[in-house]
Amino acid sequence: MRLRGFAESSLFQNFVLGIVCLNAFVLGLLSLPYFFDNTFLKQVDEICLYFFIFEVCVKIIILRKEFFKENWNIFDLIIITLSALPLLGNISVLRLFRILKMFRLFSIFPQLRFVIAVISKSIPSVVCIGFLLLLVYYIYAVLGTQLFAEVIPDYFGDLGKSFFTLFQIMTGDSWSEGVARPTMAVYPYSWIYFVSFIVIVTFIVLNLVIGIIVDSINEIKQSNDKATSKG
Amino acid sequence: MRLRGFAESSLFQNFVLGIVCLNAFVLGLLSLPYFFDNTFLKQVDEICLYFFIFEVCVKIIILRKEFFKENWNIFDLIIITLSALPLLGNISVLRLFRILKMFRLFSIFPQLRFVIAVISKSIPSVVCIGFLLLLVYYIYAVLGTQLFAEVIPDYFGDLGKSFFTLFQIMTGDSWSEGVARPTMAVYPYSWIYFVSFIVIVTFIVLNLVIGIIVDSINEIKQSNDKATSKG
Amino acid sequence: MRLRGFAESSLFQNFVLGIVCLNAFVLGLLSLPYFFDNTFLKQVDEICLYFFIFEVCVKIIILRKEFFKENWNIFDLIIITLSALPLLGNISVLRLFRILKMFRLFSIFPQLRFVIAVISKSIPSVVCIGFLLLLVYYIYAVLGTQLFAEVIPDYFGDLGKSFFTLFQIMTGDSWSEGVARPTMAVYPYSWIYFVSFIVIVTFIVLNLVIGIIVDSINEIKQSNDKATSKG
Amino acid sequence: MRLRGFAESSLFQNFVLGIVCLNAFVLGLLSLPYFFDNTFLKQVDEICLYFFIFEVCVKIIILRKEFFKENWNIFDLIIITLSALPLLGNISVLRLFRILKMFRLFSIFPQLRFVIAVISKSIPSVVCIGFLLLLVYYIYAVLGTQLFAEVIPDYFGDLGKSFFTLFQIMTGDSWSEGVARPTMAVYPYSWIYFVSFIVIVTFIVLNLVIGIIVDSINEIKQSNDKATSKG
Repeated sequence: MRLRGFAESSLFQNFVLGIVCLNAFVLGLLSLPYFFDNTFLKQVDEICLYFFIFEVCVKIIILRKEFFKENWNIFDLIIITLSALPLLGNISVLRLFRILKMFRLFSIFPQLRFVIAVISKSIPSVVCIGFLLLLVYYIYAVLGTQLFAEVIPDYFGDLGKSFFTLFQIMTGDSWSEGVARPTMAVYPYSWIYFVSFIVIVTFIVLNLVIGIIVDSINEIKQSNDKATSKG
Repeated sequence: MRLRGFAESSLFQNFVLGIVCLNAFVLGLLSLPYFFDNTFLKQVDEICLYFFIFEVCVKIIILRKEFFKENWNIFDLIIITLSALPLLGNISVLRLFRILKMFRLFSIFPQLRFVIAVISKSIPSVVCIGFLLLLVYYIYAVLGTQLFAEVIPDYFGDLGKSFFTLFQIMTGDSWSEGVARPTMAVYPYSWIYFVSFIVIVTFIVLNLVIGIIVDSINEIKQSNDKATSKG
Repeated sequence: MRLRGFAESSLFQNFVLGIVCLNAFVLGLLSLPYFFDNTFLKQVDEICLYFFIFEVCVKIIILRKEFFKENWNIFDLIIITLSALPLLGNISVLRLFRILKMFRLFSIFPQLRFVIAVISKSIPSVVCIGFLLLLVYYIYAVLGTQLFAEVIPDYFGDLGKSFFTLFQIMTGDSWSEGVARPTMAVYPYSWIYFVSFIVIVTFIVLNLVIGIIVDSINEIKQSNDKATSKG
Repeated sequence: MRLRGFAESSLFQNFVLGIVCLNAFVLGLLSLPYFFDNTFLKQVDEICLYFFIFEVCVKIIILRKEFFKENWNIFDLIIITLSALPLLGNISVLRLFRILKMFRLFSIFPQLRFVIAVISKSIPSVVCIGFLLLLVYYIYAVLGTQLFAEVIPDYFGDLGKSFFTLFQIMTGDSWSEGVARPTMAVYPYSWIYFVSFIVIVTFIVLNLVIGIIVDSINEIKQSNDKATSKG
């Protein structure tokens, strides 16, 4: 039990936090051109990785089944396992997964935990609207591919390209100059396709935003009312 | 009455849902380049179409006048009729209407029905502002055509082009680089036209969004107050 | 008094509404290429103009001082005077002011009057933030002109060009590709100027929007509370 | 004490306000091409600067320690010191800091003080989300530099360029045409990087905006409840 107390002590937590920040700083330096092949920094990064592997192993040994009850521990385990794979072979792309360890910072700052709780509370509303959005995307992607595949193959060549182009249109990046006007030069009535897509998608996203605002205000009101009726 | 119970049973509903999903999947595959001329998939799609025609006919026979009381049934009927037209002739574009059958998915998921109810509740506010927006569009389109038709005919050549260009300006896609700066090279004071349009339209859309938010919150408040006064 | 009753009767109002709609339709047709030099439509437009001049004169004679108490009447008078000027000379640009008569439609539809009332209620908050925005624009325009006038004279050549470029940056239209990256090629630290401007302006606009939302909700709450305390 | 009363009198405040406005006007004229080398305006500007130095000195002498208790006085002191530096040498860029004196206008208009109070009240929420945003930026900047540095060196050449490119992507300026599509021509799966970044960042910013709205409404509600319970 003494070891478990140590693993959950603020001293150990702060030490881990320090290593995470050090590793984040080293990873940042390594992406500057001056330090791209700096062997010392690479060694520091490797030592940080070994420390995290050691930390996860120790936590599993001490906490046992309780380790898997908290989501952050499982997140840590997956990241560390993926980051440790390149130690065995030469898969250099996987080494980049070390960067995702930085999300561990969320698990340590209590305020950031709160922010994530707020964000995750709004996810159910997002999922429902997300499905609606996916349906609209799918319909327009199939329509776009079958109508415009031969007019502008770079944008509507196949279903995947159509999905990406529709996302580009949703964000508004040169949807008219780059996509709609060249298409309209061939099919003059294709503006119906583009304008209707923008209007529908904007309307759905707007409803999502308003829905979350109204839900949040309602929730606060109800918690206030409970507090009032108790008092 | 037994047949009617069958048509409204969850078993039959789920079977129709399965066919809709299968058809949606097949339509997606058909828009990938590998399967563009795949005859098997085209046959599956045709069978799905026949099934939907059969389903609508059966529902009309069983439910009779009640069939036309629900909007989703009328929507189904229109889509199926339009999709079935190419079976008689060679109008291949109309075959694409089959894709819109996917909106049937909304009629089956109860949660999506709720989302649509929320969206349609905000439509009255939208229509009123929409008329205001249309008026502003019309005034600026007429002005733009008469002022700039000879300067940049691609953008303000006639009333239709002006409407599309104004929509492009509203979404903000290269309104300055592509439209306003070339115009200002000829008429230096045309910035008044573009800036005033952006400011007015943004202000109207902003009021629409805020109006919907305030309406929704007020409505929830009133329904809460009713619940309180009853309790 | 009988004449005054006639001028305010719904029959006369509807007749004026009809003429306004007819004139709007004719103005739209005149901006289509097919009807650009159609003499019949131009004559109809001229007759509409004479009718509006007649209507304003009659209203002034009947209502006298009360005519100037309503803003819409004054608005009508200004528009009609400006539109009537080209009858005296050859100033063809002023003829376009006839289009603004269409805003008269707002004075007739009661629902649109309500929309305008809502919009004008949010103007005080807008003016205060607008002054703040103007100050930020002015500071950045002076800075931009003095720093970048020789680097990209098309965008920051003088104070007026800087103002327009800053508006373009605020709307986000190719601020990076067209303005910031060419500037950064000469002055690498100029990103501070652009990023700080975008962040400050976005923050101010955000506060404006949130302020209007909160004000509106608060106002509704207070009017509800009054209604409750009376009941 | 008589001097202190004079320094805080509305007459002296209004005189300072007049000089600030005069200086702002002169600085604006100096950035127009016609007055770029106008010696008279430059002398007026210099006199304004001497007046502000004199004002700060007088205020320090009269108010002593109380001078440093108000933030606006410290802000004035810093601006004036930076603006006065070029008087000693030839560092012409620092002379531009005179423009920032215009923010003094905020310290005089009481309504603008209120606006700034509202803005600064929403800063705590912003800082917390800002840290979350910074973390996401840092992770994506490191990833982007290591993955795409050789593909498009102008956009992801080093950590600084990646940060600026990510800011450009967040604002949506030609993220697809200029950045994502050229990258996808080399790495077809890089759309995951761009789309995930846009979705995550939009979601975080959305939560920030909604959080501020809900906080503001809740705060008003609580202050109303207090007023009710007192009454």
